[in-house]
Amino acid sequence: MPASSPIVSLRECRRLHSRKERQASGRFLVEGIRPVRAALMSPARIEVVLYVPETLRDGYGQETIDLARSRNVPCQPLTSTQFSSISTRENPRGIAAIGRQAWSDLGQLATTTAPIVVLHEPQDPGYLGTILRTCDAAGAAGVVLTGNATDPWHPTALRAAMGATFAIPLVRCDVTTFVAWGRSLSIAIIGTSDRAATDYATREYDDRFVLLMGSERQGLPMSLEAIADDMVRIPMAGQADSLNLAVATSLVLYEARNQRVRRAVAALAFGS
Amino acid sequence: MPASSPIVSLRECRRLHSRKERQASGRFLVEGIRPVRAALMSPARIEVVLYVPETLRDGYGQETIDLARSRNVPCQPLTSTQFSSISTRENPRGIAAIGRQAWSDLGQLATTTAPIVVLHEPQDPGYLGTILRTCDAAGAAGVVLTGNATDPWHPTALRAAMGATFAIPLVRCDVTTFVAWGRSLSIAIIGTSDRAATDYATREYDDRFVLLMGSERQGLPMSLEAIADDMVRIPMAGQADSLNLAVATSLVLYEARNQRVRRAVAALAFGS
Repeated sequence: MPASSPIVSLRECRRLHSRKERQASGRFLVEGIRPVRAALMSPARIEVVLYVPETLRDGYGQETIDLARSRNVPCQPLTSTQFSSISTRENPRGIAAIGRQAWSDLGQLATTTAPIVVLHEPQDPGYLGTILRTCDAAGAAGVVLTGNATDPWHPTALRAAMGATFAIPLVRCDVTTFVAWGRSLSIAIIGTSDRAATDYATREYDDRFVLLMGSERQGLPMSLEAIADDMVRIPMAGQADSLNLAVATSLVLYEARNQRVRRAVAALAFGS
Repeated sequence: MPASSPIVSLRECRRLHSRKERQASGRFLVEGIRPVRAALMSPARIEVVLYVPETLRDGYGQETIDLARSRNVPCQPLTSTQFSSISTRENPRGIAAIGRQAWSDLGQLATTTAPIVVLHEPQDPGYLGTILRTCDAAGAAGVVLTGNATDPWHPTALRAAMGATFAIPLVRCDVTTFVAWGRSLSIAIIGTSDRAATDYATREYDDRFVLLMGSERQGLPMSLEAIADDMVRIPMAGQADSLNLAVATSLVLYEARNQRVRRAVAALAFGS
């Protein structure tokens, strides 16, 4: 048991498992070496790192504690029983951090040069984390969550995002607010739908565009489809009737990215 | 409580939660309306459908029971307490089925015309299910699991696959067996690696090729890399250092699919 007085109580940590408490406090709890490292190396404000000294004996774990200390983040040792009581995992990895949620607003996205992804009411925290990870990898400028979306600061979402939550601007707003903002933009708004006529891979994508992705079950609501300049479909073989949302989002973002690269290569070739 | 004698005991059902029991019996347990429907409409041998009459009152649920009866699959009613005891879900949906696992062998894949996907030691049943769903949607000819792979007949894998497990040929074999078979093929073998020089989107893919995908943590073992004709990389922006395996697999398969479509369109244009 550590002798010094704790920086944060175990009860405070456990409270962050609840969305209500996360929203009230504006904080999050993230677990695992990789996500904690990513949080420490990002602009996210990390208030405390919690760790089990015996569990984190290897070099990578110890380096992470050193990294926290070098950034003046207090590190609070816990026993493994204490750690298990704040963990949401079956096999706790012995390291977690508490930090401040960072939300952006639509105005901060408007000046960027890369695609903006709008997710309407994503329901599963793990999928949402995977989509953020994919958006980050594909170079998206930000992610807008509309409607009744699950919480990107949910422990499962943070784990699946592998640090992307701290790297990519996140906005949440209601559909009406987004629609008003979307109409004011001078860039293409592209939606996806199983019923669309255009194969996503046959369309040209500019460097900047807005991609609207509906939920797996419901698709996009009419109010969002109404502001789309174009709707595209991801064709499917086999007996599948839909793709995982993270997969569908990645396919459109990477097709756009691949076109961007081909344009750059062509410009170089003709410029030389 | 149903009056007729049960076709299958609850204990037998619960045993199928264990991989060892699934392997010993060659059976699987699948839950949920969509996966059960997909199983019934596939060539999979379904032995029994278990359902809670009160829970399945809506049209879609009732249709699924009718479908089972029309295919001469016995339907066994359960109370919701009984059903909960065989379910692996927090919110059981009131329908499940038991069927026979179907495995293919490498020889059955050799004659096909579409890409074959090799997954080396995938660890997470949910991700594996999502990959199968994606492979089916992208028109893959089959999936080969090498090494110490998780079980595609795990209830979580079956749920995530949304029926693709029953639609796409599945092979499992050790790496040595696969390497020997791979060397005998006259089609390109393409592996993925973060360290590869070639951007996956700049390569040309024939209709037929083999795609080697390593595990997220370990990548491909040397023995598999050694038989690859080419290694490709999926470029990543942001701070991400890897992509979800289902996402990475889908990107390569859909790039190949998109090239196939463009070739077909070009052939039509020049042929007319």
